[in-house]
Amino acid sequence: MVSIPAEWQIRGLSDTREVINAVLPEDAPTTASLVAGPSLPDLLLANDKATALLSSSKARSICTLPAHEIVEAIRNKRLTSVEVTEAFLTSAAIAHQATGCLSDFFPDEARRRAQELDAKQARGGTLGVLHGLPVSIKGHIFLTGHGNQNGFALDVLSQEAFDGLLSDQDSPLLRNLSPAHIALIKARGPRISTEDGLLARILRDQGAVFYCKTTMPQSVMHLDTRSKPFGQTINPYNLALSAGGSSGGEAALVSGGGSVLGVGTDIGGSVRQPCAVTGLWGLRPTCGRLPSTSSLAPTPGNSMVVSTIGPMCRSLKDVILFMAAVLRGEPWKLDHNTYRLPWRGEVVRTPRKGRLRIGILRHDGLVRPITPIRRALSSVTSRLRDRKDGSAESVTDIELVEVDAGDLHARAWTLIRSLYYVDGGAFTRSVAALGGEPLLPLTEKILQDAKERTAHEIWELTMKRESIKKEYLKWWNELRLDAMLCPASATVAPRPGTIKYWGYTSAFNLFDLPSLVFPTGISVNAEADVAFEASEVSDAHSASKVKRENTGDWDRENEEEYVRHRDVYEGAPVGLQLVGSRFEEEELIQVMQVIERAL
Amino acid sequence: MVSIPAEWQIRGLSDTREVINAVLPEDAPTTASLVAGPSLPDLLLANDKATALLSSSKARSICTLPAHEIVEAIRNKRLTSVEVTEAFLTSAAIAHQATGCLSDFFPDEARRRAQELDAKQARGGTLGVLHGLPVSIKGHIFLTGHGNQNGFALDVLSQEAFDGLLSDQDSPLLRNLSPAHIALIKARGPRISTEDGLLARILRDQGAVFYCKTTMPQSVMHLDTRSKPFGQTINPYNLALSAGGSSGGEAALVSGGGSVLGVGTDIGGSVRQPCAVTGLWGLRPTCGRLPSTSSLAPTPGNSMVVSTIGPMCRSLKDVILFMAAVLRGEPWKLDHNTYRLPWRGEVVRTPRKGRLRIGILRHDGLVRPITPIRRALSSVTSRLRDRKDGSAESVTDIELVEVDAGDLHARAWTLIRSLYYVDGGAFTRSVAALGGEPLLPLTEKILQDAKERTAHEIWELTMKRESIKKEYLKWWNELRLDAMLCPASATVAPRPGTIKYWGYTSAFNLFDLPSLVFPTGISVNAEADVAFEASEVSDAHSASKVKRENTGDWDRENEEEYVRHRDVYEGAPVGLQLVGSRFEEEELIQVMQVIERAL
Repeated sequence: MVSIPAEWQIRGLSDTREVINAVLPEDAPTTASLVAGPSLPDLLLANDKATALLSSSKARSICTLPAHEIVEAIRNKRLTSVEVTEAFLTSAAIAHQATGCLSDFFPDEARRRAQELDAKQARGGTLGVLHGLPVSIKGHIFLTGHGNQNGFALDVLSQEAFDGLLSDQDSPLLRNLSPAHIALIKARGPRISTEDGLLARILRDQGAVFYCKTTMPQSVMHLDTRSKPFGQTINPYNLALSAGGSSGGEAALVSGGGSVLGVGTDIGGSVRQPCAVTGLWGLRPTCGRLPSTSSLAPTPGNSMVVSTIGPMCRSLKDVILFMAAVLRGEPWKLDHNTYRLPWRGEVVRTPRKGRLRIGILRHDGLVRPITPIRRALSSVTSRLRDRKDGSAESVTDIELVEVDAGDLHARAWTLIRSLYYVDGGAFTRSVAALGGEPLLPLTEKILQDAKERTAHEIWELTMKRESIKKEYLKWWNELRLDAMLCPASATVAPRPGTIKYWGYTSAFNLFDLPSLVFPTGISVNAEADVAFEASEVSDAHSASKVKRENTGDWDRENEEEYVRHRDVYEGAPVGLQLVGSRFEEEELIQVMQVIERAL
Repeated sequence: MVSIPAEWQIRGLSDTREVINAVLPEDAPTTASLVAGPSLPDLLLANDKATALLSSSKARSICTLPAHEIVEAIRNKRLTSVEVTEAFLTSAAIAHQATGCLSDFFPDEARRRAQELDAKQARGGTLGVLHGLPVSIKGHIFLTGHGNQNGFALDVLSQEAFDGLLSDQDSPLLRNLSPAHIALIKARGPRISTEDGLLARILRDQGAVFYCKTTMPQSVMHLDTRSKPFGQTINPYNLALSAGGSSGGEAALVSGGGSVLGVGTDIGGSVRQPCAVTGLWGLRPTCGRLPSTSSLAPTPGNSMVVSTIGPMCRSLKDVILFMAAVLRGEPWKLDHNTYRLPWRGEVVRTPRKGRLRIGILRHDGLVRPITPIRRALSSVTSRLRDRKDGSAESVTDIELVEVDAGDLHARAWTLIRSLYYVDGGAFTRSVAALGGEPLLPLTEKILQDAKERTAHEIWELTMKRESIKKEYLKWWNELRLDAMLCPASATVAPRPGTIKYWGYTSAFNLFDLPSLVFPTGISVNAEADVAFEASEVSDAHSASKVKRENTGDWDRENEEEYVRHRDVYEGAPVGLQLVGSRFEEEELIQVMQVIERAL
């Protein structure tokens, strides 16, 4: 059993805690009494006390099914929405006890909704694509009657306290803020939503049962999930580690068996990195493919980099289920930022020259991935290569191409950090200060080089953004790739508070290419990792060969951290990333299906 | 004959003037000797001297054909690209003599290109959608080997002079500019393009013959076309009036018979208003439908409002021809700002409840259209209404709905002017100052309320933009419209330098709805206008009934200008605007086809 340092202890909103206590008996397992499971959702099922809470073997089996099978079972009346919802209410409460993943929990509302949906089905009503399925959503996504948060203490104040703070004429905090700054704090979005955002509305129309919202880190902008109101969110695979971020609450919940389909948001890796470090599937679609105006923004009105919604789940089919469900709602008719692209369920990819051409990017030119990630990428490419040479019966041939993006990713990393904070981070600092909390170290870290920009400097940054996007697309087109395989992160699930580099995901936010994270089945294994390091010396394709000059500090820190704490990281899962062409989510998924079959 | 005030006299770049002189004999007609024609392209054909320059009746007839017929004739070998190109070279030179519409003219390059295309066809090569067709483009669109301009004197300096200006350490002009400001001036875009922008590349791939670029107003941001390097561009329909702007050069050229298919850009009405005032068809597609990164930007890096390319031509079928040709080039693969939406040529619109529901917006709530525009809208709606009641044989029924957008358009007008100039207009002022020219009154006018904004103010403006777009879409959806018919401008072709209000077009840039301008066949007619004014008293649908409280100054100025100069405006054509749903250019065109048949 891994001991949990005291400062990582899980907190919960008092009202969330109360409803969880109402679902769980007093002796329900807590973080300290749970052991990390070898694979998902074994965390729950391997623990006697946890398992006992799921009232029947049927309930236990529900929590192991993928979403599309649950939907199918409800449709065919093998399960009811009430049964499924009850199972996930219990498993979510347990997952929260273990990982601290919930920021809001509303079992009674969910039970009423499930009953209504079962009654509708009994009446022979038209069923949505997600009919009866419990769906969890990230803490800042707008849902009728529920609070929204960006991991700030200010977000969980009562409305009265919040109003009082902002109307205090003598406040030294407010006195130094411009009218626009104060207006932005007031206008960030609803503290408690009086209506569904478009995403929630569409999911609800398609039959989703909402039952919880999940934790986010202070300011949203960490690949980790820790906040003053909600504490540290922990990785179900390895309770000594973080579940990643900023959709770390979703990752912990879905990975921990407490949800089968979660919705995160991604402006720098916030769907993909948490999925990669908790053994999940996660998609960051092209911006504008899904509705975008449905969540509390960490930097309201900043359009320099655009966030997008994405699914977090346990199978590729569930990624498809989510995309098809949302696009069936024709969001482009209701959201002026969504493009008119129905889901093309029946895409048939015609591989170029009779084969799929997949690029392998082992190193982004700035930070070298640590050993287990290099090993995972090497393992996957070897298996794909072996298959290509050996399988005469395969329908689709795969051509692997080692690619090198020069300094494009390094420049992207420098640029995107500027774009997040053209106000120099002043807004983030004032929101934290108003809530009476200090900035967490990871918030300080992402703000550290932020500068307030003039209008002309913002225009100049925009031109740089357009220019590098153009350059990357040219590079991509010249390679004639069907997709590109690469790390989803330079590191595995971090020890809380230690992850600082996002470049492997944020690059594709900047370049706006759809990117899919998938589990490899590979996890940190000290023995295998040491052996792999030895083998790299003679491997022509190894990451060590593409190490760049300018990678000193990042690489040294990452390597030291990993080598010093190999025992802590043991068992942490490794996900990888597959990147496609703009607005070709369907084609990307098709390539993934070929890869999945090959593996 | 209308006399042309001395200060409107047409200038040309000396090299353009020389190539025009090489195409035209010394006694070719000039502006002063031309009379305005009653309809297009009668301007050319009604003038003996002009007609004589077209070498044959075949050449003369070429200039009267729509683009799709020319393409068809070349494809079927009834015409050659060389014949067609020669005809348009001559007619363009004449149109320039009359209106001052060209900023660049390159007959030899065009002749070589036409010969190559004819040779390709003779060899049996694959022909593009535009094979052999001369296409004119606006002055700032990137085309290999040609200069780009935004109507500034600075743009037509030699590279040496430009470099000298910007490297002058002692320049008092530069000393006060920030590094970002200077960087933006240097990085606006190529002064002379070394490669085609994506738009030109696709048109060229589809077989276009480029032969000229056209004039733009100083700073681009006028609904008029006057600049220091190119003087005033004049309306072929009425030589006392402007051709509108900012694509006024294109409008004068196409309307004057010198081009059959022109390409403009529109960030506030710059395709639509010039088309409306010169009797042309023009489309502003949804942003991102066509490639957007192919022109010199007036405010580089400002992404608060996005410009889009659009066709300017003499028939609806040519609008379709252009859209289909550009989208056949799959621009989304090459431009990171274009969406993956192939042209849906075979769209079949299913009218709601068996009929098309068309909104009529007679007044935008801020500025009342002058009499001939109210009369044209009234005439069109009457004809549509009569047809609906009387035509049993019609396939599609039309339902007309009077609509009122409240204060949405008035707020949009205030907002969009802020969004254009979040730098307070400093960039525009410095580019003019560096070229040694004063700001023209219309440039001063659009900058008059501009304020330099901080990053937080820019975020706040962005939130306002998102909010009003959301609000408008909600209004639009609640009306369940298939399309909306409205003025394209509050005024007809302006006397040069007098037009200040863009709200009827800029609203749809802000709301980002595709909008199509079409000719009504109606033009200013003092007698009919006075009669119409009298009739309005008893007409329940008249514009006078929706006059708002806050329209005093604009309305008084527009009315005074029009009434005082009725004789000058006589004969000016009136176009109207049809607005559709986002990314539904195909559906918009289908509604237009129904209307066109009905009229």
